[in-house]
Amino acid sequence: MNAYQNMTAAERAKVHAELKARFDAICAQGLSLNMARGKPGGEQLDMVSDILGILNDPAQTMVDGMDVRNYGTLCGLPCARRLFAEILGCKPEQCFIGGSASLQLMYDFISKAYTHGLLHSPRPWAREEKVKWLCPAPGYDRHFTISKTFGMEMITIPMLPTGPDMDLVEQYVRDPQVKGIWCVPKYSNPDGIIYSDETVDRFAALKPAAPDFTIMWDNAYAVHEFDGPFRPFRNILALCAEQGRPDMVVEFASTSKITLPGAGISVMAANESTMEYLTGLIGCQVISYDKVNQLRHVLFLKDKAHTLEIMQKHASILRPKFRCVLDTLEREIAPLGLAEWQRPVGGYFVSVNTLPGLATRTWELCKQAGVTMTKAGATYPGGVDPKDSNIRIAPSYPNTDELQKAMDVFCVCLKLAALEKI
Amino acid sequence: MNAYQNMTAAERAKVHAELKARFDAICAQGLSLNMARGKPGGEQLDMVSDILGILNDPAQTMVDGMDVRNYGTLCGLPCARRLFAEILGCKPEQCFIGGSASLQLMYDFISKAYTHGLLHSPRPWAREEKVKWLCPAPGYDRHFTISKTFGMEMITIPMLPTGPDMDLVEQYVRDPQVKGIWCVPKYSNPDGIIYSDETVDRFAALKPAAPDFTIMWDNAYAVHEFDGPFRPFRNILALCAEQGRPDMVVEFASTSKITLPGAGISVMAANESTMEYLTGLIGCQVISYDKVNQLRHVLFLKDKAHTLEIMQKHASILRPKFRCVLDTLEREIAPLGLAEWQRPVGGYFVSVNTLPGLATRTWELCKQAGVTMTKAGATYPGGVDPKDSNIRIAPSYPNTDELQKAMDVFCVCLKLAALEKI
Repeated sequence: MNAYQNMTAAERAKVHAELKARFDAICAQGLSLNMARGKPGGEQLDMVSDILGILNDPAQTMVDGMDVRNYGTLCGLPCARRLFAEILGCKPEQCFIGGSASLQLMYDFISKAYTHGLLHSPRPWAREEKVKWLCPAPGYDRHFTISKTFGMEMITIPMLPTGPDMDLVEQYVRDPQVKGIWCVPKYSNPDGIIYSDETVDRFAALKPAAPDFTIMWDNAYAVHEFDGPFRPFRNILALCAEQGRPDMVVEFASTSKITLPGAGISVMAANESTMEYLTGLIGCQVISYDKVNQLRHVLFLKDKAHTLEIMQKHASILRPKFRCVLDTLEREIAPLGLAEWQRPVGGYFVSVNTLPGLATRTWELCKQAGVTMTKAGATYPGGVDPKDSNIRIAPSYPNTDELQKAMDVFCVCLKLAALEKI
Repeated sequence: MNAYQNMTAAERAKVHAELKARFDAICAQGLSLNMARGKPGGEQLDMVSDILGILNDPAQTMVDGMDVRNYGTLCGLPCARRLFAEILGCKPEQCFIGGSASLQLMYDFISKAYTHGLLHSPRPWAREEKVKWLCPAPGYDRHFTISKTFGMEMITIPMLPTGPDMDLVEQYVRDPQVKGIWCVPKYSNPDGIIYSDETVDRFAALKPAAPDFTIMWDNAYAVHEFDGPFRPFRNILALCAEQGRPDMVVEFASTSKITLPGAGISVMAANESTMEYLTGLIGCQVISYDKVNQLRHVLFLKDKAHTLEIMQKHASILRPKFRCVLDTLEREIAPLGLAEWQRPVGGYFVSVNTLPGLATRTWELCKQAGVTMTKAGATYPGGVDPKDSNIRIAPSYPNTDELQKAMDVFCVCLKLAALEKI
């Protein structure tokens, strides 16, 4: 029973009238606030903008025995591969450096699975009768969009506080039509959950029926603590190799939220034999990604230790924003029992699970009031949240004043939705 | 009859002995010279390296109403779209700005044709029984590699001095399994031919049986004159639209040989309805390509007139190199009648057609002597030149001294190959 259900009808009517008046007053202000996307704010961009001018002299462009201004070196600049290997805890020769978007590396990987097949595929997936895919949810909408555009049958796996429900994962991978799973293992999008050691071990120990089953390990928030120190995380590539399925996992990361979103560099890390297979295919597509930008990143980030220093500066900007969101929820929503949420210490989101049936209505009311949020349901495969409960809050882009205003609006809207529902 | 055939056996033996002695002397030098790839030389890179430092202040990053340092704007920065539209003579809204490689845009276009189909496709090409593709040859090996990796049946179309043999093209497009053609319409790779007005008109007037037949118009050398002024070229998008098949062509270009190879920006230009269809698919793959680098290019290139000024500076570096190649061929090979070649005034190659059966042997001898050339046959589909005749010379990368040495080696090797053949 939530607080509103415990009220008399008259009490509820009074509360509703007060909230409706506040809502109307908000609407009259013509707000335009955005908590939809994990976009770094302007202060974060300024903090890293020295990268723009860090490489401006032709004398700097001879690196690793090559002129980064010219063609060549498909897998990326060796010093960039070493940097990512250090950050991810894998080997440089397991790292392929891409362009500004790890999303593109993920899409291209799946696309090549369809057109050519993966290293251990019996045939290209385009010639499979059906491809099924495991989707831990709530999850990242752009992952699910890739699955959808290729026509995969998506299977929702509930997220637990330890990561995806591994009992279900272990059960589903017995089906040879199940070809893979999306994972954001550290500070999962949107819950901000760190997969437990046991979960990671169980992933590495999977023995799927499909020989080309692939764990898409999107380590988007590998160094993205905003509260507290860097938390080391295990190297899934090594664990899968130890368990005898070295090609079962491909890891992705980028600097989108370390340097500049959309102007950073990305990485795909995989076992050497998968890397050899993939570069054979990628060599038909590109001569190399932008090595000048790779060098800019190496000069700016230097190494893991220095990267972590930069991440602490991001943290100092992000921390007050997340605290604003969490404190407001704690003050306004917790006492009423209308929703639950994690208290993440890294990543880019706060994931709110309302009482069933309130998410879409809350989102609609926010929209009317001028607050843009990720569409309710977007965190589930096909855009349908079966409980209509999950709402993803992205606090990074607005400044703290705007964010407080947006959170006040959100709480009013959630309360109104709850009252309407009774 | 070539000059060697007119000699007596004794004369030939004498010439052969002399050439063999020169060849052995060259081999003993342990040369390492490269005429394989259309790579700009160091002097060209230095000439454009101000682009590295042109954008170094956060105050410069607000453009077209957005901060280029953040996510967003799938089709690219509006000012970059306007720049390419001016250069190509099409509309900004027909331009999609990509990453550092137009090759990637081409590959992705074909890949999406296979996985999703094009705007007018009855079905994805992966579900076609067979896909046939027209390959004007000699042509660009990386085009043919894309066709090969997707398993297309490649049909060779001979190149004439006016462009591809259009009688054959018009005949083949009556076959609904023929889905497209590769074209480098201005300074074709490798011949350096500019398609004639009549050829371009006949392309635009094609009425292929396949509703999704696509002309892949790789305008890689749109502004790449190295001898003489810029030559205006017709806008194929407008011509196809006038002829009632606006979606039949997709045009590609890049700044790889205007600014920095592998660190430039690329463009795909298409009719608005194709653009709308494609961006719907590309939106699953990427949020946007690197807008910071797009802005760098707009700041550096400014507009078409200034881009052409930069190209004249490239020309002044390239012209002596091409003259070295052409003069050496004229002096050493023409009198013997061992080969023919075009005298291009733009592009990056000189295409030598030897007497039949000499190309592979010449390439082998060059390799032995320390001169790397594009593998003989590479300019034909499947890497097989039916006459074993075409050799592509790329003069841009070596300096003029090295180039002269490499050309001397080449001529010795070609003569030896001709003598061995008799």
